[in-house]
Amino acid sequence: MDTHELTKMLHTKHDSKIVFLIADGLGGLAKEPGGPTELEAADTPNLDALAKNGCSGSMYPVGRGITPGSGPGHLGVFGYDPLKYMIGRGVLEATGIGFKVGPNDVAIRCNFCTLDADGKITDRRAGRIPTEESAPLAVKLRQVSIPGVEVFVEPVKEHRFVVVFRGKGLGDKVLDTDPQETGVVPLDPVAEDEPSKKTAEIAAKFYTQAIKLLADQPKANGLTMRGFSGLPHIPTYEDVYGLKAAAIASYPMYKGLAQLVGMEIVGDASTLEEEVEVLADVWDKYDFFFVHFKYTDSRGEDGNFEAKVKMIEEFDKIVPDVVKLGPDVLVVTGDHSTPAALASHSWHPVPVLMSAKDCRCDPCEKFSENEALKGGFGHFEAIHLMPMALAHAGRLAKFGA
Amino acid sequence: MDTHELTKMLHTKHDSKIVFLIADGLGGLAKEPGGPTELEAADTPNLDALAKNGCSGSMYPVGRGITPGSGPGHLGVFGYDPLKYMIGRGVLEATGIGFKVGPNDVAIRCNFCTLDADGKITDRRAGRIPTEESAPLAVKLRQVSIPGVEVFVEPVKEHRFVVVFRGKGLGDKVLDTDPQETGVVPLDPVAEDEPSKKTAEIAAKFYTQAIKLLADQPKANGLTMRGFSGLPHIPTYEDVYGLKAAAIASYPMYKGLAQLVGMEIVGDASTLEEEVEVLADVWDKYDFFFVHFKYTDSRGEDGNFEAKVKMIEEFDKIVPDVVKLGPDVLVVTGDHSTPAALASHSWHPVPVLMSAKDCRCDPCEKFSENEALKGGFGHFEAIHLMPMALAHAGRLAKFGA
Repeated sequence: MDTHELTKMLHTKHDSKIVFLIADGLGGLAKEPGGPTELEAADTPNLDALAKNGCSGSMYPVGRGITPGSGPGHLGVFGYDPLKYMIGRGVLEATGIGFKVGPNDVAIRCNFCTLDADGKITDRRAGRIPTEESAPLAVKLRQVSIPGVEVFVEPVKEHRFVVVFRGKGLGDKVLDTDPQETGVVPLDPVAEDEPSKKTAEIAAKFYTQAIKLLADQPKANGLTMRGFSGLPHIPTYEDVYGLKAAAIASYPMYKGLAQLVGMEIVGDASTLEEEVEVLADVWDKYDFFFVHFKYTDSRGEDGNFEAKVKMIEEFDKIVPDVVKLGPDVLVVTGDHSTPAALASHSWHPVPVLMSAKDCRCDPCEKFSENEALKGGFGHFEAIHLMPMALAHAGRLAKFGA
Repeated sequence: MDTHELTKMLHTKHDSKIVFLIADGLGGLAKEPGGPTELEAADTPNLDALAKNGCSGSMYPVGRGITPGSGPGHLGVFGYDPLKYMIGRGVLEATGIGFKVGPNDVAIRCNFCTLDADGKITDRRAGRIPTEESAPLAVKLRQVSIPGVEVFVEPVKEHRFVVVFRGKGLGDKVLDTDPQETGVVPLDPVAEDEPSKKTAEIAAKFYTQAIKLLADQPKANGLTMRGFSGLPHIPTYEDVYGLKAAAIASYPMYKGLAQLVGMEIVGDASTLEEEVEVLADVWDKYDFFFVHFKYTDSRGEDGNFEAKVKMIEEFDKIVPDVVKLGPDVLVVTGDHSTPAALASHSWHPVPVLMSAKDCRCDPCEKFSENEALKGGFGHFEAIHLMPMALAHAGRLAKFGA
């Protein structure tokens, strides 16, 4: 029996409220051995108070040694096994720009490229053509028309754009057309199973028409298609936890990921303060709230230790406004680590704290990677976080008599 | 998706170097509650310095409560699930005496025994006949000749010897011929599947000829055959981790185990100092180095606490010479515990330390079983060690976008 079969079997009606405050890329690294991490260097009186009276732990979003992308990182925190529910590149790219991928869609991550007179690729990224030049080209491709299927073309950034085919019975097992080298022509789209043959044919038709539309373009006269993918079959929060869930995020990617597990996107906040205002506004309408804060990750990705420290302090400041709402269970964590020292996502575990009436208070004095090692939750994989939150929220019945 | 599918999917080219220093049977027990273990009693300034600036944890080679043999213990540390990859007794026995089992081999662990006039077993171990008397008998059995198959007979120790059949299409599902009691005749070799019928026939022919050769022997005129086994299908380090791996060990058993996962055996060291010299010599040629130190286990098996302490101190002394080579990731641990108090392998977890540039330094002040409980890696099964080492070596790509 997997975790979701269990939570589904045991879930219980309750009017308790659960809040997940997710600081993206929260976990960090010290500048030198024995020094503080970004979280440890930050002045976080509110988070420390929660940790002191709550329960902490050290969490692996995917698994030990595994550096999670944003997709797997969030799926893990949401309680879904990231190794079971794989989100394709096309779907993730579409999700990242706010395109709502539907059940009959196949999404494709495309690159503009340049082709020579023989149709051979000369630059796989069309010289990283600026977005203001590539976006009109993507829009131009909306002229492609294929009978029996809806076609969406969306600009992304520089040479990247997204194509979505919407139609019944489209498989997504189609190989990339990007040959990963120059001096050769793009590959034909090849289906790997029966239901994907139709998709491959549509992709071939799309390509033929698109190439004609781009023929006279000096900056980008070709394209390649990668990461063909449909919506993964993910059960919803309502299904597996019996929770009506709301997502409050400012970036499309995180809204999209939340939608994949059946959360409703609420509000239109762009700052953390606005996110908390939205939270207060919709408080009565939902059981579960995912509140996403992006900038801890961004400053980590920039490699800027001090700026990440500042973002963590900003994050700490809004905590009292969340606490004031009276959540039965408040969880604070990240979807992965983004140490400024590495300027990228990393495999290091993420500290977690839970504040709830029935927490067994542990010896942690503050919210920190190192304090969390002493935490009552120990070291655990992210998929175990939701059952613990549900339990503390009085939403899981006894298992067996 | 299992760990190896994941590491295979994510592995990345890098010129980093990983060293695993394995002190066999490292974990121990205190003489009395509150006292130090062998590792804690030992003066280990070099290991302590690594632990202080690195990351530690408490590792289960197979699983909680499970006492590993040398085979499963090493497989676990090498990152292979010991419950999935079972090494048969015959193969392990052959490996232990330095016999290189090949893909067309079936290895069998045999006992000399004594038979009465009716062919019934009177002593299953031939009175634990001394090796100097049993070895010539094993050599005598090399006269056995079976058409279409190569037969190897190798002495081991006392009543034990190894027989290997080499030929195409030999199955290894043949039941033991040892009836596990006296007063009865040895069982016929019985095949449990189709490909093993040929092996069972060969075993029966071997037995008939062997019994004739032993007929006039006063000390051992019979034999039984156990643990029929072929090479398990284990993917190599190159396959699953993308690593060119070298093994430096003085005992045949550990060389054999390393070979099973595709490591190359390098050098011909017999002391720890010589092992480190070999390590330096081959440093440029490999990505991964398994360095095995036997005597911590041997003194534990002897039940000699003080002698094991001394061996750990010897082990500590060579650490600076390894550090000097500049490994990107240095892991120090054991393949299981061998507490002197038990004079045998045990189920207790083994302390692990990792030293690497991007370690998240934890509060451990020294290398010890009890300090490791505070470690950043927490408590974990050995199969997670390799992914963590690969991550710290920059050899695992991000999972998902």
